[in-house]
Amino acid sequence: MRIVLATRNAKKVPELRAILADAGVSAEVLTLGAFPDAPEVPETEPSFVGNALLKARAIAAHTQLPAVADDSGLSVDELGGMPGVLSARWAGRFGEGDQDRANLDLVLDQLADTPAERRGARFVCAAALVLPDGTEVVAEGVLEGRLLRERRGENGFGYDPVFVPEGETRTTAEMSPEEKNAVSHRGIAFRTLAKELAEML
Amino acid sequence: MRIVLATRNAKKVPELRAILADAGVSAEVLTLGAFPDAPEVPETEPSFVGNALLKARAIAAHTQLPAVADDSGLSVDELGGMPGVLSARWAGRFGEGDQDRANLDLVLDQLADTPAERRGARFVCAAALVLPDGTEVVAEGVLEGRLLRERRGENGFGYDPVFVPEGETRTTAEMSPEEKNAVSHRGIAFRTLAKELAEML
Repeated sequence: MRIVLATRNAKKVPELRAILADAGVSAEVLTLGAFPDAPEVPETEPSFVGNALLKARAIAAHTQLPAVADDSGLSVDELGGMPGVLSARWAGRFGEGDQDRANLDLVLDQLADTPAERRGARFVCAAALVLPDGTEVVAEGVLEGRLLRERRGENGFGYDPVFVPEGETRTTAEMSPEEKNAVSHRGIAFRTLAKELAEML
Repeated sequence: MRIVLATRNAKKVPELRAILADAGVSAEVLTLGAFPDAPEVPETEPSFVGNALLKARAIAAHTQLPAVADDSGLSVDELGGMPGVLSARWAGRFGEGDQDRANLDLVLDQLADTPAERRGARFVCAAALVLPDGTEVVAEGVLEGRLLRERRGENGFGYDPVFVPEGETRTTAEMSPEEKNAVSHRGIAFRTLAKELAEML
């Protein structure tokens, strides 16, 4: 079976391939690199699930293959659950040049007066699988944690340098990629999705 | 009777004095200008009511006079109710130089992909009165509306140029100060507070 992962980032393939294999699904994983005419799908929905479905539907329709897409971000208690679906573009125009850095600086500034007991946050990932026949499966993964006041660690990306998972003392930027995958919201969502796919097949 | 308005902005006095007079409360309204040693009260609470009470309590304790304080801001549906209590410093470090302009630019960018039917928002104001004997009265005012994509009008401040109240076609920056006071969240909160004060006296 062939599955399209709705991303142009080939680095994401090995993780999905390993997760599918662990779930007993033998599949060839393609990316959008194999479909140069695939549509760009803007992430305009107000929820992670909505955006993941939007992308998976468009790519399944275009490729006529099972399509997997995900959307993820950081949900901060003190910010009413934001940056949420806006995590990658939270700083808007002020992120030009280095969006990742500006997004994180902005969240740190917005929480400047927030004491430790109110710095709860979670990484959330929604993964969606859409089959050409219209079948849709959605899975969500959540990693609970809290936000530091200063960056620590060089791994990961985005908000990783200030995010400490529950029960951990290190930030997700201080974990190895393998350690992070084992506990991450993205890992959880994709493993759940793979399990559901295995049951369907 | 003398009342302290917990602000250093003398321009806010005429509005409160007029509202108190309308409610039948005859009071001399002072500002913090009359109390140079009054403490600076950081707005660290996660709610408007919390911040208004924080300020009113501190000023009533310091002056031994009835103290009135308010906190207000913009609550945007699509941003999970934010900027909320962070309205005046939403852009953090990116607002240096012109915080008002940067805050509004940032909200416009964050809503860039948000269609008209999801652009609901409201101005919220909490006003608190604290008496030296510990009595506390809180009132909240809300002005429902929606956010435009571009600025219109030169009056007001903050988010006024993109905010259109329900049932209006103009932004609050296109209204005269008198028109805005008549419908505004701040006007509603202060009139409610004045009415409660009148009943207490």
